[in-house]
Amino acid sequence: MEKTVGSRVVYDGRIIRVRVDEVELPGGKTATREVVEHGGAVAVVALTENGEVYFVRQFRKALEKELMEIPAGKLEAGEDPAVCAARELAEETGMAPGRLQLLASFYTSPGFASEKIYVYLATGLVPARAEAPEDEILQAYRLPLGEALALARAGKIEDAKTLVGLLLLPDTEFKSRNSE
Amino acid sequence: MEKTVGSRVVYDGRIIRVRVDEVELPGGKTATREVVEHGGAVAVVALTENGEVYFVRQFRKALEKELMEIPAGKLEAGEDPAVCAARELAEETGMAPGRLQLLASFYTSPGFASEKIYVYLATGLVPARAEAPEDEILQAYRLPLGEALALARAGKIEDAKTLVGLLLLPDTEFKSRNSE
Repeated sequence: MEKTVGSRVVYDGRIIRVRVDEVELPGGKTATREVVEHGGAVAVVALTENGEVYFVRQFRKALEKELMEIPAGKLEAGEDPAVCAARELAEETGMAPGRLQLLASFYTSPGFASEKIYVYLATGLVPARAEAPEDEILQAYRLPLGEALALARAGKIEDAKTLVGLLLLPDTEFKSRNSE
Repeated sequence: MEKTVGSRVVYDGRIIRVRVDEVELPGGKTATREVVEHGGAVAVVALTENGEVYFVRQFRKALEKELMEIPAGKLEAGEDPAVCAARELAEETGMAPGRLQLLASFYTSPGFASEKIYVYLATGLVPARAEAPEDEILQAYRLPLGEALALARAGKIEDAKTLVGLLLLPDTEFKSRNSE
């Protein structure tokens, strides 16, 4: 437990708010904690009948490069993560899920950020109509699950939520069916 | 590619620096990108001869709760991630690795943060002497690998690097030996 003895907001933006807290440690000393407040996000492992998984390739300004990720997006205030997952999947791949199953929810970087991400498995995909926000430019594509898992195990996937989603797919149900 | 047409630093702190960039999209429109710059981190799956894994329980101010994580810490400027991994492991568990093997390196939250984390497998553990920084208060403990993997698959582990580290352990070498 760290008791907050002081707190100031140093940046209040569009998707993040940054706070600097002064805390009292159990021993009585004080320390400073920088906290990035983030409203949370969802990500979706969308698996086709043929055992393929959807990915998106998107330029990430924070990294100054493109990254291979599963479809994902930010939660709106008060939004049900499953509703958000279906919306983001439709916007980014044009597909709607017949079934959504929560694979995991986790904190991306608990040392400084409050962001929690919910990762779903989507199956029973059917075409949907949706458009991505105009400041999101990305390319969607599919890979066989076995190939995607091989990339993950070979260190070729550099995104936390994508790694967790792929590696947590139910073993017996999908992986054995799709790996060579 | 997003061409930066404007950039201002809105917070320059101890472990993060926050920037707001104005970017030009391929179509010619502009958009705003909030970027949290972070120097990167390491995490360690430290596996004993008996097939147990080290964990730490630590209060995380950003979440206002304790979290179960593998040992981890921030990279110092220019530091070799493997050196950092050995140092953090010693500080948090009192053990030094005989062997370090990179399991994965990935971005924790590419939508807004530059943080990259390197996750290692440490084996051949021997006692080391090291002290944790005084503002880090944590408890170290061990769990059998099979139990840790079961927690991960049951959604009981809420930390990205811990999930990735456990789920990426070489299948044949360790998991089969340790799961019931």
